[in-house]
Amino acid sequence: MALPVEPIGVIRSPFKTLTNMPVQPKGAAGAEGEVLVDLKYIEGLADLDGFSHIYLIYCFHRAARTELKVIPFMDVCLRGVFSTRSPLRPNHIGLSVVELLCVKENRLIVRGVDVLDGTPLLDIKPYIDIFDSVNESRSGWFTAGQREVAQKRSDDRFS
Amino acid sequence: MALPVEPIGVIRSPFKTLTNMPVQPKGAAGAEGEVLVDLKYIEGLADLDGFSHIYLIYCFHRAARTELKVIPFMDVCLRGVFSTRSPLRPNHIGLSVVELLCVKENRLIVRGVDVLDGTPLLDIKPYIDIFDSVNESRSGWFTAGQREVAQKRSDDRFS
Repeated sequence: MALPVEPIGVIRSPFKTLTNMPVQPKGAAGAEGEVLVDLKYIEGLADLDGFSHIYLIYCFHRAARTELKVIPFMDVCLRGVFSTRSPLRPNHIGLSVVELLCVKENRLIVRGVDVLDGTPLLDIKPYIDIFDSVNESRSGWFTAGQREVAQKRSDDRFS
Repeated sequence: MALPVEPIGVIRSPFKTLTNMPVQPKGAAGAEGEVLVDLKYIEGLADLDGFSHIYLIYCFHRAARTELKVIPFMDVCLRGVFSTRSPLRPNHIGLSVVELLCVKENRLIVRGVDVLDGTPLLDIKPYIDIFDSVNESRSGWFTAGQREVAQKRSDDRFS
């Protein structure tokens, strides 16, 4: 049963190639980008400007295959793909939380984009602290510190 | 351009009808559920058990239409759908962060499920604090307190 999913817009970012990208929004803290929402959905953007952070759900459009075990950028071992944020998952859906700087008609200016320029946008959701924050968490194999993530850049392993 | 998205499993929850459900995971803090992943993807679940929280991305399979303005459960005004978590968005994709209690082969036992029993699962991602946590945020129209969310239950407005 395939589900009907269509892009509702496109994400513009400074990252034009799959290599040398930040591997997560926290590594792209300074990177500003634009989310261009199709004009037919502009009414749905009302009230979004009151939120400081939003989730972007998008398609890893350059991921052409699925692998159930991958070596993440932050690791040296094969890991189950669902324990990673690799694009090579069965459904090529990506998720990032970014800072929303402003809304200008159908354009959202955001900070912390970690996606490839031209990424098809599937959904926007508000980040709502009392729904989405997690007070204490364990991050399994993922043990790198914040500084290491900020410096980490992608290579071509997932292309 | 439609994107190929197919369920990778199903979410089992105590909630059998669209009414009287918690409206977000924090309102379903005590509700345990199961995520049943298709056996062909079981290898991809390796290493997930080291994470205390995961994102579930799923299909709002009972949402049969799109509305660009909705009155959210937590409000009394029409709001742009992208500033809400309503199912009636252009792509019927849902997102919840839940606590992962354990992994038993292809079954994940989770706490805080706020979805309808039988919800098609699209993806699982690890919650990674240094990627996903937001230190300070503004939540726009959403001003309800935690207690109110915990008590809030759905009605049939999005069916």
